[in-house]
Amino acid sequence: MARWLGRDVVSILDFTRDELLDLFEAASGLEGVLESGRARRLLEGKIVSLAFFEPSTRTRLSFEAAAKRLGAETIGFTAAEATSIAKGENLADTVRMLDGYSDLIVIRHRYEGAALYAAEIAEKPVINAGDGRQHHPTQAMLDLYTVNRLYGTVDGLVYGVLGDLRYGRAATSFLLALTRFKPKMVYLISPPLLRPREEVYMALRQQGLPFQETESLEEVLPELDVLYVTRIQRERFPDLRDYEKVRGSYRVTLDLLQRHAKPELKVLHPLPRVDEIDYRVDGSPYQAYFLQARLGVPVRAALLAKILGAW
Amino acid sequence: MARWLGRDVVSILDFTRDELLDLFEAASGLEGVLESGRARRLLEGKIVSLAFFEPSTRTRLSFEAAAKRLGAETIGFTAAEATSIAKGENLADTVRMLDGYSDLIVIRHRYEGAALYAAEIAEKPVINAGDGRQHHPTQAMLDLYTVNRLYGTVDGLVYGVLGDLRYGRAATSFLLALTRFKPKMVYLISPPLLRPREEVYMALRQQGLPFQETESLEEVLPELDVLYVTRIQRERFPDLRDYEKVRGSYRVTLDLLQRHAKPELKVLHPLPRVDEIDYRVDGSPYQAYFLQARLGVPVRAALLAKILGAW
Amino acid sequence: MARWLGRDVVSILDFTRDELLDLFEAASGLEGVLESGRARRLLEGKIVSLAFFEPSTRTRLSFEAAAKRLGAETIGFTAAEATSIAKGENLADTVRMLDGYSDLIVIRHRYEGAALYAAEIAEKPVINAGDGRQHHPTQAMLDLYTVNRLYGTVDGLVYGVLGDLRYGRAATSFLLALTRFKPKMVYLISPPLLRPREEVYMALRQQGLPFQETESLEEVLPELDVLYVTRIQRERFPDLRDYEKVRGSYRVTLDLLQRHAKPELKVLHPLPRVDEIDYRVDGSPYQAYFLQARLGVPVRAALLAKILGAW
Repeated sequence: MARWLGRDVVSILDFTRDELLDLFEAASGLEGVLESGRARRLLEGKIVSLAFFEPSTRTRLSFEAAAKRLGAETIGFTAAEATSIAKGENLADTVRMLDGYSDLIVIRHRYEGAALYAAEIAEKPVINAGDGRQHHPTQAMLDLYTVNRLYGTVDGLVYGVLGDLRYGRAATSFLLALTRFKPKMVYLISPPLLRPREEVYMALRQQGLPFQETESLEEVLPELDVLYVTRIQRERFPDLRDYEKVRGSYRVTLDLLQRHAKPELKVLHPLPRVDEIDYRVDGSPYQAYFLQARLGVPVRAALLAKILGAW
Repeated sequence: MARWLGRDVVSILDFTRDELLDLFEAASGLEGVLESGRARRLLEGKIVSLAFFEPSTRTRLSFEAAAKRLGAETIGFTAAEATSIAKGENLADTVRMLDGYSDLIVIRHRYEGAALYAAEIAEKPVINAGDGRQHHPTQAMLDLYTVNRLYGTVDGLVYGVLGDLRYGRAATSFLLALTRFKPKMVYLISPPLLRPREEVYMALRQQGLPFQETESLEEVLPELDVLYVTRIQRERFPDLRDYEKVRGSYRVTLDLLQRHAKPELKVLHPLPRVDEIDYRVDGSPYQAYFLQARLGVPVRAALLAKILGAW
Repeated sequence: MARWLGRDVVSILDFTRDELLDLFEAASGLEGVLESGRARRLLEGKIVSLAFFEPSTRTRLSFEAAAKRLGAETIGFTAAEATSIAKGENLADTVRMLDGYSDLIVIRHRYEGAALYAAEIAEKPVINAGDGRQHHPTQAMLDLYTVNRLYGTVDGLVYGVLGDLRYGRAATSFLLALTRFKPKMVYLISPPLLRPREEVYMALRQQGLPFQETESLEEVLPELDVLYVTRIQRERFPDLRDYEKVRGSYRVTLDLLQRHAKPELKVLHPLPRVDEIDYRVDGSPYQAYFLQARLGVPVRAALLAKILGAW
């Protein structure tokens, strides 16, 4: 579709339902052929810049694997090297440099709006690999793709989104992505301190997402088809005792799932996790986060291929 | 030309006018085909080592993009990793390692003479990507290529070289490169503290470069065809008040250019810049530094292709 | 051979004499064609992960060069980046990530057993690039390959292994590797403080390696065909005076070799070296460590090619 060629990917809200389904179809088509090496000439001769101003091994390596499975090359820098750039040069000049050296720029940045700013400066397409507290569109794409692959649809399901809904961009992007589909219900499960920011509530209401807030995972667990877990960071809590309480009640254990969840429930997590999901869940049928991590490659490959006109 | 095959690139003074023109022709030929992917098999199967003992994102990434546009692969390390090498091993052993693993070594090092030393040890060709305070030959090549592309010639023009002419290797290499051509006049514009070192004066005189020194940018600005700006670093000044004065008088603003410069004046800068060029110059016809940055890729690609026998 | 396909490489003791000879044959076959680019399609479309939790430029770059000479791509991280992973995530999750993104995982880790653990988790083959104090199997492979190339055989020779036999994994792996062959004698030359650990002695005895301990290099030097030197680190010694004594007596100088060694003696060293081998040895016929370093590429390429089914 012409709409993909040369396109920037800044927010998941830039995409319609049909576009996302179209992307899923491409990802599905690529899944079979990436590892076999049959897609290895699709982006031959292309260079993808990976500008990671903030550390993220998982996102960086999955973009890198996606590009290289398609025969593209990558250049770029990681957060450690970015420090020395940051001292000397403004973001605009760095983006112009990459714009001159490569065919597409993937950017990860600590500040809200960095990807949009980069997209305005660069002539080449820019993909937001996470900026600020709100946007991580390719994570949301692969999250929904995983749901779609497990259930054959994203619609009609009951979702629980658990953890830090205030500062976690994966959770927020997932919620925004759900507005493009027709979930039956979305439970926002978090301690009061980590509820979404007002602007996110407004976006969810405006987009007509059916949601309800709760502090209790146990209460809603029996209804859920998908539980999206995110990390709760200690640093968010002024009082450590509050943190210890919250952490205990939001820890997803195998026992908790076996007592309360439907057998079909699937647990997602953007990873890395620390201890918010017990390792005993790993071997259970609830676990879907390792599959989800793996699917980052075909989804990002599909995005690269479409934007660079190869699919 | 047989003279390029396997050749080391240590100083810009190793090259004749004809060789540089020959390089420019190759760069010009590559400019059209690098991004289209049509040059992507020229260096297939080759490995280029990027040994950056000193940080330089711009130079590193442009070499990497150049190599990869031609189908070569790169291996290497950045300054952060180099620290752990430096502790354990002398430069000679590191160079021998890269000599065994790759087909060409690009080296960036803090110390004067490191590239020459590497070239003596390595059997494979070595390219100096900046060492010490004097030599950065590939920067000079792309600088002159940019002038040549803008004016159709390097000869007969009036140049101003502004900033730190004492410690800045880009400025010094640019001056040395100009000795290979016939500029009408070269103005060395700097505060007394940052005038070239005696050895550089000697080289310029010996090579017969027509130059004049001045402290005032305003005074010579009306005559200039090319203004080459470099950064003045605070650390160079024992007295901060001296720095503030100098910094103010050497700041290139749009207003200054519009009041004093010819309309055809082109402003170059090796980048990164901090605040020595006002951002309002970016959108003006004087600005040529973004083009210059971009041209680093075809010039370095031409050099790699010629040295490795592919062009 | 079917035995190689998909195989993990954790310890040199996992390999039989025949398998090692088979590997040497492949390495020998590749030596001629790697630099010419004729092997550049063997692993096309494959991705090799380089997970270096501990710094090692030499090992990392030789794996990277090996993979790229065969047309494979690499993704991964170096020790500097690994720190930020280590904070957030356990080794198992990191390994699962790489397992999902690539076709083979090369891992270097500070802790004993990390590679075995990774191999148990990953579905894709895992190669140990050094873990703990004992195992560095690919180093041992290239060490023996070097001996084999120099003498036409590994059997029947007199070996001296010098230096830190207690904490140095290269020395230990070399000793374990020798148990697969029939050396005439192996001298363990070290100060008492740096003698092998009990478990290593047990392994050597159990495997029937003919060895003798000594503190004096001079004494056994006349008998040696191969002298394998490793670094003695100051940090190992509670008393600095002990260190200074040991260091002096174990320094391999040209004079020492000329006075005591056979003319055919070959000196190996896994590198990097600091001052345990005098630089004047570099230009002498005794020196074989630069060749040895170079041979890391064909040996590792052979291993990758066999495990990934391309040779």
